[in-house]
Amino acid sequence: MELIDYIESKREDHLNELKEFLRIPSVSTKSEHRPDIERAARWVAEKLRAAGLDNIEIAPTKMHPLVYGESLHAPGKPTILFYGHYDVQPAEPLELWTSPPFEPTERNGNLFGRGTADDKGQVHIHLKALEALRKATGKLPINVKVMIEGEEEVGSVSLWDFVKQNRERLKADALVVSDTSMLAKGVPSITYGLRGLNYYQIEITGPAQDLHSGVFGGAVPNPLTILAEMIAKLHDRNLAVAIPGFYDDVAVPTRAERRALQSLPWKEKEFRKTVGAPALCGEHGYSIVEQLWTRPTLEVNGIWGGYTGEGAKTVIPSKAYAKLSTRLVPDQDPAKIAKLVERHIRKLLPKTVTHKFEVLSTGKPWVAPYSHPIFQKAIHALEAGFGKKAVFIREGGSIPFVTQMHDTFKVPCVLLGFGLPDENAHAPDEHISLENYFGGIKAVALFYESLASL
Amino acid sequence: MELIDYIESKREDHLNELKEFLRIPSVSTKSEHRPDIERAARWVAEKLRAAGLDNIEIAPTKMHPLVYGESLHAPGKPTILFYGHYDVQPAEPLELWTSPPFEPTERNGNLFGRGTADDKGQVHIHLKALEALRKATGKLPINVKVMIEGEEEVGSVSLWDFVKQNRERLKADALVVSDTSMLAKGVPSITYGLRGLNYYQIEITGPAQDLHSGVFGGAVPNPLTILAEMIAKLHDRNLAVAIPGFYDDVAVPTRAERRALQSLPWKEKEFRKTVGAPALCGEHGYSIVEQLWTRPTLEVNGIWGGYTGEGAKTVIPSKAYAKLSTRLVPDQDPAKIAKLVERHIRKLLPKTVTHKFEVLSTGKPWVAPYSHPIFQKAIHALEAGFGKKAVFIREGGSIPFVTQMHDTFKVPCVLLGFGLPDENAHAPDEHISLENYFGGIKAVALFYESLASL
Repeated sequence: MELIDYIESKREDHLNELKEFLRIPSVSTKSEHRPDIERAARWVAEKLRAAGLDNIEIAPTKMHPLVYGESLHAPGKPTILFYGHYDVQPAEPLELWTSPPFEPTERNGNLFGRGTADDKGQVHIHLKALEALRKATGKLPINVKVMIEGEEEVGSVSLWDFVKQNRERLKADALVVSDTSMLAKGVPSITYGLRGLNYYQIEITGPAQDLHSGVFGGAVPNPLTILAEMIAKLHDRNLAVAIPGFYDDVAVPTRAERRALQSLPWKEKEFRKTVGAPALCGEHGYSIVEQLWTRPTLEVNGIWGGYTGEGAKTVIPSKAYAKLSTRLVPDQDPAKIAKLVERHIRKLLPKTVTHKFEVLSTGKPWVAPYSHPIFQKAIHALEAGFGKKAVFIREGGSIPFVTQMHDTFKVPCVLLGFGLPDENAHAPDEHISLENYFGGIKAVALFYESLASL
Repeated sequence: MELIDYIESKREDHLNELKEFLRIPSVSTKSEHRPDIERAARWVAEKLRAAGLDNIEIAPTKMHPLVYGESLHAPGKPTILFYGHYDVQPAEPLELWTSPPFEPTERNGNLFGRGTADDKGQVHIHLKALEALRKATGKLPINVKVMIEGEEEVGSVSLWDFVKQNRERLKADALVVSDTSMLAKGVPSITYGLRGLNYYQIEITGPAQDLHSGVFGGAVPNPLTILAEMIAKLHDRNLAVAIPGFYDDVAVPTRAERRALQSLPWKEKEFRKTVGAPALCGEHGYSIVEQLWTRPTLEVNGIWGGYTGEGAKTVIPSKAYAKLSTRLVPDQDPAKIAKLVERHIRKLLPKTVTHKFEVLSTGKPWVAPYSHPIFQKAIHALEAGFGKKAVFIREGGSIPFVTQMHDTFKVPCVLLGFGLPDENAHAPDEHISLENYFGGIKAVALFYESLASL
């Protein structure tokens, strides 16, 4: 099998090139990394060219550029639009990385570094699958459009404008995305549901300036205490979100879906081991898989205020801050939820403080049936690429773009995930399994090849 | 009046020398400032020498050196022990200072800079009063012992060892301290009560490492939420501390004392203006002065965890932290209170997290009658130095050393405060009123002079 042999022969080249990609610290959330973002965009454009794509463009946006390329030389054959992102999460806290986040390092069959799993490693799988198809078979068997953005980790702020402005150009028969995880090692997976994400920031101001906690303590509002008291009221005794109306529009999965989810080879023991907490802690009345995939959440992602250095400082600070987010499920509406969250927080805060509430980003949840024949092609390609049985899963993370594309173009969205849930996406020591990286290139190449007969 | 004329003639020299002292960033809480601490200790020793003191010593301790000097050439006259500190609070957040914290700057009759009020400015008042007495009158009219430590802002960790090892050498008829505030501008004050201070740090660990809030959110313990929920349970609806036993030993002021405190020229309007919050917020059933001076408190001084940078990061952190402190009043016992706080916090935390509770420092409260004749000398000297009526007050801050000295040596402790409550000790834009600085030098010189006839 020419294609697979070719891919096997390039293992070392592929891995070295991925490392090159990973060394660019393209952290989209921090303005100081702007030059790295631009470098990463140019790197992606160059690799699209190497894969034989045409009309390559580094499209400027309000924030970070988007890279586009296409190959439309298979008349009568299906067209797929592949989406990924070249930006990464911040690497902090740096001291918790075993090897430096932007110096990719192999250990125990894994490649460690920021972006290995989310999403540079997975983007690279597609770049190399396309290149392999072209080099091993002379041409691409289908039409492809590739769109790699640089703002995914900051809420894809410009992506939708680009799509709207290029609606005709982006038309395709299916959307393919690799920014999710497999259910577990050895279980290649297609994701048919994602949670939505709203991200908020709150600033609470008590005294006009920091005050001495001896001279003033006991008579003045402490914004840290008030912030804590507000956060404490966001969940009830059953660990459900205590915001009125929050669950009103939550779609309940059918009994058949619940059964299918429960019968997946999902390993609670491994999940507990990955989490490593003394105990789990989720909404009462739901299995863990249901909590993660089918129920909305509210999480505190950051909190700060007052003195946080070494030793003691007896201060009552003027300000306290928190970053919060809600994960949403069908059929919750992000705009409506943002209003409910804001209204409830306003109601909870006492008149002794002022506050500023910001919605940093919103994103819709998504779930879709996997009845279109393209899903069978995908399952077969995964099983051929990995030599293992493949499954359909949902996921707790968010890719707002998938929902938007699905809503707009009404085409199937095929989410082929090559990460693993314990690969520390967004955390120190992020990594990707080399078995999944190499298996992914084969599976994706086989998938694209098989689509010629769709 | 030779003494006062001399002091008046040296205004500019005194102020310039104080600025020199303030330029040394002797922040005791941060190890990186160790060389500055040592420089400040040498500076103080040099000024004791200039004031004519003998047996000057920079005594090493476990942490930061203590500076000692004495003048024992007035046989038959009283001996006073003066105590102050040359270390200062951290200056952060730096961006909130109008002028740099370690570049003293005059504005509107005030001198701005870290340590101006707490406590370098007040220490310098005594150094210059002693020097003036000696230069204007040829010799010191009483015996003095001066002890200036460098660890006050970190809980005076070595001071007590020094006192115990030098018990005979430090014996005196009275302790004099200037590390407190006047009741208000134009109201010179002697403090006869201080709150004690226990400082705690808590670290809460949920997951073994930071987790992606999409992939894991909804099923795992979030240490930030759990920290907030714990903090929210530390006060009740009446804003009293909700720790069982916390108020058990609190001494209730006599009706006479309550009346005296209520009749002080304390200006609520100015207090509210200084605080600058939308409203005050203290324990129900007590006046503001009572809340500040006679009631114990629990305050959150710092809180941190998760992502605190620009933009969004969807993380469930492994750890969350808080710094807490309790201000104590007679007859609360710091060790007992520390145990109650720890026990209650342990009880509040769920089994889904582990935690580490540390007591960073403890300090006893203090209150003492002002019946000894030295207090009348002090009141007269303050009234002569400032040309205003002086009063007796309590204060909400803490000087653990005063309690210890009072307990050990059983001598009167005279707390002459030259700061003002709105001078931002421990906060950005700390300052001292120049009127109080110059008035203080005169009052202290007159006080020491008058003690010859005690």
